[in-house]
Amino acid sequence: MDRRPAHTPARLDLNSDLGEGFGAWRLGDDVRMLDVVTSANVACGFHAGDPATMRHTVRAAVARGAALGAHVAYRDLVGFGRRRMDVPSEELRADVVYQLGALQAVAAAEGGRVTYVKPHGALYNTAAVDPRVAEDVAAAVAAVDPTLVLLGLPGSVALDAAAAAGLPVAAEAFADRAYTPEGRLVARSEPGAVLHDPEQVARRVLRLATDGVVEATDGSLVTVRADSVCVHGDTPGAVEMAVRVRAVLTAAGVDLRPFVDA
Amino acid sequence: MDRRPAHTPARLDLNSDLGEGFGAWRLGDDVRMLDVVTSANVACGFHAGDPATMRHTVRAAVARGAALGAHVAYRDLVGFGRRRMDVPSEELRADVVYQLGALQAVAAAEGGRVTYVKPHGALYNTAAVDPRVAEDVAAAVAAVDPTLVLLGLPGSVALDAAAAAGLPVAAEAFADRAYTPEGRLVARSEPGAVLHDPEQVARRVLRLATDGVVEATDGSLVTVRADSVCVHGDTPGAVEMAVRVRAVLTAAGVDLRPFVDA
Amino acid sequence: MDRRPAHTPARLDLNSDLGEGFGAWRLGDDVRMLDVVTSANVACGFHAGDPATMRHTVRAAVARGAALGAHVAYRDLVGFGRRRMDVPSEELRADVVYQLGALQAVAAAEGGRVTYVKPHGALYNTAAVDPRVAEDVAAAVAAVDPTLVLLGLPGSVALDAAAAAGLPVAAEAFADRAYTPEGRLVARSEPGAVLHDPEQVARRVLRLATDGVVEATDGSLVTVRADSVCVHGDTPGAVEMAVRVRAVLTAAGVDLRPFVDA
Amino acid sequence: MDRRPAHTPARLDLNSDLGEGFGAWRLGDDVRMLDVVTSANVACGFHAGDPATMRHTVRAAVARGAALGAHVAYRDLVGFGRRRMDVPSEELRADVVYQLGALQAVAAAEGGRVTYVKPHGALYNTAAVDPRVAEDVAAAVAAVDPTLVLLGLPGSVALDAAAAAGLPVAAEAFADRAYTPEGRLVARSEPGAVLHDPEQVARRVLRLATDGVVEATDGSLVTVRADSVCVHGDTPGAVEMAVRVRAVLTAAGVDLRPFVDA
Repeated sequence: MDRRPAHTPARLDLNSDLGEGFGAWRLGDDVRMLDVVTSANVACGFHAGDPATMRHTVRAAVARGAALGAHVAYRDLVGFGRRRMDVPSEELRADVVYQLGALQAVAAAEGGRVTYVKPHGALYNTAAVDPRVAEDVAAAVAAVDPTLVLLGLPGSVALDAAAAAGLPVAAEAFADRAYTPEGRLVARSEPGAVLHDPEQVARRVLRLATDGVVEATDGSLVTVRADSVCVHGDTPGAVEMAVRVRAVLTAAGVDLRPFVDA
Repeated sequence: MDRRPAHTPARLDLNSDLGEGFGAWRLGDDVRMLDVVTSANVACGFHAGDPATMRHTVRAAVARGAALGAHVAYRDLVGFGRRRMDVPSEELRADVVYQLGALQAVAAAEGGRVTYVKPHGALYNTAAVDPRVAEDVAAAVAAVDPTLVLLGLPGSVALDAAAAAGLPVAAEAFADRAYTPEGRLVARSEPGAVLHDPEQVARRVLRLATDGVVEATDGSLVTVRADSVCVHGDTPGAVEMAVRVRAVLTAAGVDLRPFVDA
Repeated sequence: MDRRPAHTPARLDLNSDLGEGFGAWRLGDDVRMLDVVTSANVACGFHAGDPATMRHTVRAAVARGAALGAHVAYRDLVGFGRRRMDVPSEELRADVVYQLGALQAVAAAEGGRVTYVKPHGALYNTAAVDPRVAEDVAAAVAAVDPTLVLLGLPGSVALDAAAAAGLPVAAEAFADRAYTPEGRLVARSEPGAVLHDPEQVARRVLRLATDGVVEATDGSLVTVRADSVCVHGDTPGAVEMAVRVRAVLTAAGVDLRPFVDA
Repeated sequence: MDRRPAHTPARLDLNSDLGEGFGAWRLGDDVRMLDVVTSANVACGFHAGDPATMRHTVRAAVARGAALGAHVAYRDLVGFGRRRMDVPSEELRADVVYQLGALQAVAAAEGGRVTYVKPHGALYNTAAVDPRVAEDVAAAVAAVDPTLVLLGLPGSVALDAAAAAGLPVAAEAFADRAYTPEGRLVARSEPGAVLHDPEQVARRVLRLATDGVVEATDGSLVTVRADSVCVHGDTPGAVEMAVRVRAVLTAAGVDLRPFVDA
């Protein structure tokens, strides 16, 4: 999962949140996104993703060779896993184990295998800064299978805790987010935090893939570790952007493939 | 899983539905029942059993060497999985895969392994008579792991479908239920369908273990295949009965152990 | 709720299922549909419709003067209330009371008032033919407020049971469904059961409004009682059809208003 | 709801959390507690209390003349509403409206009427200190019916916000909790925070009823406003204590009745 030096053919993984429907409801265009990404963060039923939806998503991902990641979340269907919750360690660990196992069986039933875990929404944000929550996630994953990779923000306590628990880790960048000169995401509450121009975004991701750098808000170039780049597919515009990112990367000869071998 | 001839030391498995709490709610005395049974049918979250409860139950079962079975159910928490539902095949199969996988991961996290599946409540009853539902359950289990055993009523379409899907099967009898001369359970709506005297029940289970027969409602002896005998633990009286069954079997030298090796 | 004689200005109500999102998920274009219909069947949380979505829907309906109906359903979020369930009377009655009350309070908070009840999906279908379920629904509604109208299929046991329970009833027709010469809906499994041409559908609804008749599958004219006509809004095409129905009715001078006064 | 001067016959309300089962699960002995209390805080489905359980509870409460309060909570069944959640205002307000309305309809169906609201668990604790949450609860209740009383901790922002929203308020004390010399509850994390001796607890409640004071942890007497005193019924020991409290109050001639007239 180390980034390749710039002089070898650049390699990159694109990940996206998929399977985020529930029952009769759909969110995003999973089929089109699966032609873009190389890793699928599959919702596991707690913030989205009923079992039948999970199976559809996994089947489509396996057919395209995408890596399967468990997109584990707080149990909060109505809040889509975006609301912070105080979940005691024992419960949180069991929740992560449960969701992960459910996806593993769905993957097995479809001839695939889960290779990584990425927390979702409020759990992602909390695990990035709260050591206790980060340790809970890491311990849960390690208890099920210590070869699973934890995908998260570089420099986050989520990755630190995962590494401390003996898990391999992978760092993700966000295609449509601005970065500070220190290499951190600009907070969503700040103006300009989210980029909307597909061409600009595609060029930034290409530079990240080839040179390992992003242009920060002050114009400086900052090194950003990115084993995978997250693209969104929850709106038509987001899908167009993701399609454009892939097109630009492919045209430049970037080797698009999962950050972890299936 | 064939029954032993009567002249070898009789062997029997006792199973019970465990982990049927949810969050703050408890049902039955799991700890005492785990000192009685050799196989634990663990609720998987759809009729009962939140992840933390599942993990507690599995931990206690693993500590005692009990076999772990996935007690899969319709998604009906408020109805405790006892209400019949028309669930399309694709959804039902995915539901079974999901629950089974969740328990497998909980088991893995606790150093155990799921070795069998037993449908719960309305799903048990429907799968016993409805070939489509029986095939859905069997196909789902087989898709995850074809070495898993399906535990069910002898002669039911559930076991037929499981065998047709290539799964090993195990037959269960019910300690506290009356049998017809044909070897079928007396319907619960009939008087005398459920036995309440612990001594009588214990003697019947012993005879089943040693001779493979049960005294039917007409006094005749009927052969009943039983790789496992189901005992209940959801009321104080039920626990006493189960304790008595085990005591009588143990005193008679019956070899109590899981019907399938862990 | 009796239909007007043909020589007075025709009057009709258009109803549609609204508020069928849940949390982050949306279904249909409620805003556009609220410019079409005069009665809003509002999902009450059991098949769709979280409280915040309910409140948005009710607010928009109240602002447009649409009547508010409780679209009560089986508790089956993942199945969207479309799966048949065996729910005992006591539970079903309580479920209906609960959903109805929830919507009443949402309506009160938005300055509106629930005036009718329409069962949804599997509950609608079952209550149309199963007297026990029909009586459960009627008894529940009557227990809360016996002035509430039950909206359902003319000739159904749902309406019979409601009338027997002392509730006012209203009959609904379906804009896009074919009718038999006996005035019944052609089963969805039959070819031609669902009509897709907006112009044809609009003309049929107009004739229903003015003459009280529908052209049946054999070309004959059949009298169909319709205090309200159901139009759909869950796909872009459905919305276009509904818009067209309203336009044709309005152009012909049909008085579009709720079948029950608010 | 002002406390009576000590020279008139003392009057007091006893409240308890009831109907906290869900489906097959039970919590506490509601029947016995309804012979103790004069106000029933009825769970409304979000932390506990399915519709059928609610109806049973309300029926029993109405039969005994107990006042009915909506025990509204965060939507967190598995966490029993005890886990803090960041719920945006719009969602929280709608959640409170929804639960309140559901109970109102259940009450109407049983010939009763909801007269007050008491937040549960984490919502109670958060509303006691967080003005935004307190305002959300108050605004939701006021939007449904501004004559409903909010029951809460004296001096809490929950009561302040309710009063500011024009709601009548009632203060509750806790029978089994120690108080600081300032008249606040000793935090549960402190030793001695919870009292276990039924005789001591009963005497304290009697003194509160007759003199309006409680002996604080330092032995001083502190004035505590208590329109109602909360007693628990979730364990056999808790029920015994509640029974004893009532017996002592009754023997001393305290007029036990709801703090608000039904």
